[in-house]
Amino acid sequence: MSKEIPYKIYLDEKDIPSSWYNMRADMKNKPAPLLNPGTRQPMTAQELSGVFCEELVKQELDETTPYIEIPQEIRDFYKMYRPAPLVRAYCLEKKLGTPAKIYYKFEGNNTSGSHKLNSAIAQAYYAKKQGLKGVTTETGAGQWGTALSMACAYFELDCKVFMVKVSYEQKPFRREVMRTYGASVTPSPSEMTEVGRKILAEHPGTTGSLGCAISEAVEVATHNEGYRYVLGSVLNQVLLHQSVIGLEAKAAFDKYGIKPDMIIGCAGGGSNLGGLIAPFMGEKLRGEADYRIIAVEPASCPSFTRGKYAYDFCDTGMICPLAKMYTLGSSFIPAPNHAGGLRFHGMSTTLSQLYHDGYMEAVTAKQTEVFEAAEYFARVEGILPAPESSHAIKVAIDEAKKCKETGEEKTILFGLTGTGYFDLVAYEKFNNGEMDDYIPTDAELEEALSRLP
Amino acid sequence: MSKEIPYKIYLDEKDIPSSWYNMRADMKNKPAPLLNPGTRQPMTAQELSGVFCEELVKQELDETTPYIEIPQEIRDFYKMYRPAPLVRAYCLEKKLGTPAKIYYKFEGNNTSGSHKLNSAIAQAYYAKKQGLKGVTTETGAGQWGTALSMACAYFELDCKVFMVKVSYEQKPFRREVMRTYGASVTPSPSEMTEVGRKILAEHPGTTGSLGCAISEAVEVATHNEGYRYVLGSVLNQVLLHQSVIGLEAKAAFDKYGIKPDMIIGCAGGGSNLGGLIAPFMGEKLRGEADYRIIAVEPASCPSFTRGKYAYDFCDTGMICPLAKMYTLGSSFIPAPNHAGGLRFHGMSTTLSQLYHDGYMEAVTAKQTEVFEAAEYFARVEGILPAPESSHAIKVAIDEAKKCKETGEEKTILFGLTGTGYFDLVAYEKFNNGEMDDYIPTDAELEEALSRLP
Repeated sequence: MSKEIPYKIYLDEKDIPSSWYNMRADMKNKPAPLLNPGTRQPMTAQELSGVFCEELVKQELDETTPYIEIPQEIRDFYKMYRPAPLVRAYCLEKKLGTPAKIYYKFEGNNTSGSHKLNSAIAQAYYAKKQGLKGVTTETGAGQWGTALSMACAYFELDCKVFMVKVSYEQKPFRREVMRTYGASVTPSPSEMTEVGRKILAEHPGTTGSLGCAISEAVEVATHNEGYRYVLGSVLNQVLLHQSVIGLEAKAAFDKYGIKPDMIIGCAGGGSNLGGLIAPFMGEKLRGEADYRIIAVEPASCPSFTRGKYAYDFCDTGMICPLAKMYTLGSSFIPAPNHAGGLRFHGMSTTLSQLYHDGYMEAVTAKQTEVFEAAEYFARVEGILPAPESSHAIKVAIDEAKKCKETGEEKTILFGLTGTGYFDLVAYEKFNNGEMDDYIPTDAELEEALSRLP
Repeated sequence: MSKEIPYKIYLDEKDIPSSWYNMRADMKNKPAPLLNPGTRQPMTAQELSGVFCEELVKQELDETTPYIEIPQEIRDFYKMYRPAPLVRAYCLEKKLGTPAKIYYKFEGNNTSGSHKLNSAIAQAYYAKKQGLKGVTTETGAGQWGTALSMACAYFELDCKVFMVKVSYEQKPFRREVMRTYGASVTPSPSEMTEVGRKILAEHPGTTGSLGCAISEAVEVATHNEGYRYVLGSVLNQVLLHQSVIGLEAKAAFDKYGIKPDMIIGCAGGGSNLGGLIAPFMGEKLRGEADYRIIAVEPASCPSFTRGKYAYDFCDTGMICPLAKMYTLGSSFIPAPNHAGGLRFHGMSTTLSQLYHDGYMEAVTAKQTEVFEAAEYFARVEGILPAPESSHAIKVAIDEAKKCKETGEEKTILFGLTGTGYFDLVAYEKFNNGEMDDYIPTDAELEEALSRLP
């Protein structure tokens, strides 16, 4: 194909996907089911419905339907900020002097600043449709909480957010955005819940973790009439909603007859990565095409690369269902790395199964080298990236440099999941040379893994 | 025309304007020339070249060329974030229940968060082309400083920013973005310059103003070999570069055969407003079409509505040329309103002449009603607006409500100049009910105006 490729490939509004794609339908080995923490039996739809909205429970359990239609109300909301551009990183390529062709799918062009809005609006919609009063959730970096507060404002739902304490303190302005959208925000662990009080008693002075915040949000949802809990990552339903990222990216590539050689995404709970790779992984699962797929996780929280594939709790308070996943142990509380969105001890069950079956690779990146890549990228591509997204930037740059050595003209796609406007405390530390690289010792990991259920 | 109008009208990359449009070429009454503060004679190109880059001086003085070609290097940079979308505010219209059709040209989809980048990249380009080492500037809200630091990083120029002290304190993270892009940032007034020391001696404890910061930046530029001063608003060259906003908006409207009835923009020094209205004003000046054009300024700094049309200094230190403009007096230091980008005592000479000749209207808005409009807009349109831009939102909503009363289906265009990610201290005050409305008394204004040169 000889069509000139613009800096930004935009699809038409009418080409926003009309259905989400469900990778599980094409997986031979399905992800293992969630287990009831009491009985250790697979969670039934009825049991899950006490925690989650009904329609979302259906999506969570659906392993066979490849395409699930996106309701018109959600598509209308998507039109406010989608299609998101697929950007050709011409300036980065030039600066690196690489023959590689680098593309990124940019999901930061909305006020929540990240891809999280794709699932937030879907979950808020189903909550509204079910006639609920409101929803509760946790947030790490604050991206998910912001996205959910926007979505709830749009559908006029109450929104209660438990924010990991370290992020709450590092990102005071995140709280204000959520309040501007009408949400209430509580630093976690808090004295407001039973599980929060218990965690505080056991770990006084803890800076919290996603696992703690999840426990608190679930407790509040299940103890209040008309509320359900919603989650921004890990779950199958979230990966399903996030498939719009990959579907749009693939449609944009198809317009120009391009096939990426490798796809790189950061991995915390797996929402962005699972969404970005979805249609490509579909082709790979069906044997129609092959792609290198690389998950990048922080060296401080290396679930894939140093965790164990086992049943574990998704939350620190051990009140949630058990999931079979790559995990560092639900008692593992990662160092206060600035990529708050990647500080989760576990991983999506779907991605865990795919990784286990050899469909994807995983690598780690250290915090300071991630910020070096972030600053380099910002100066040439003009976008200030979120620390989470910068994990993918770091590895994309590494791969482009390898192409420079070998002369290979590989096509690299990475997910630029969001912007770093609320991460300036982290950038300040980096600019002042005060950032460190915490990597857990083998002993620490063994200790947490020894407590697996 | 019956074509369905999408939520966001995007032009193709090839339709990024290839020339800027110079309103002055179509003005019968040209804006009055800048005067030398010593001789009170019109500034010559040679005199201006000590302060500004040569090519920019040519643009500053060019009153006859209607279209000035945009160099390819600048157009390539524009491709990283332009064309900017023209958004149909369907959700806002629905919420208001108005028959009006509301559109906004959104300039916040780049890391600097505002339209300022359009001129920053042009000014940095000409500085680089002239072989300079670096540039100096002032910044109020921080939008211009951020934009300039990005532009300088791209062309590898040194960038020294003087930031109005009140903004420096309200927006600690703005400084970090600029540092991440490699700029140095000094709160103004500072002890670093002669004029800064003088202002501090006369007004101890002052929170600064754009006028002070300009004086300091000009002093540093003129006292350092290989440096020139660049300015983010007020000047003719800046309005010229910003005409891309209006040119793109008009091209997007033309695609659908739409003609707006009124065009609304916030006005501080006039860069956004002058750019947004440029091609529409051109038609109006040439008698080809008519539009209502409305400038919105903060009640705390009402240059158009309560100022005087007279020659005045552009800076507090009175070392810059004199400009004939609507002014509150260069000694007027506005209250620490949160719309830092609108806290300038004067106004573009071009817009001043057009206002004087009756081609546009001006209104004021109070701070709290501006933030009410901002929050309302954020919740329905999903974008957190900058306080500056929210002045235009406030008046656009007012006009849409009038249409609801009269049943008129007017087409409203307003400029959404940027995002409010760095204005969360202001939103916090608003959310806490701690925001006030400062409006200068007649006596205060008379005092400042009595000191006009």
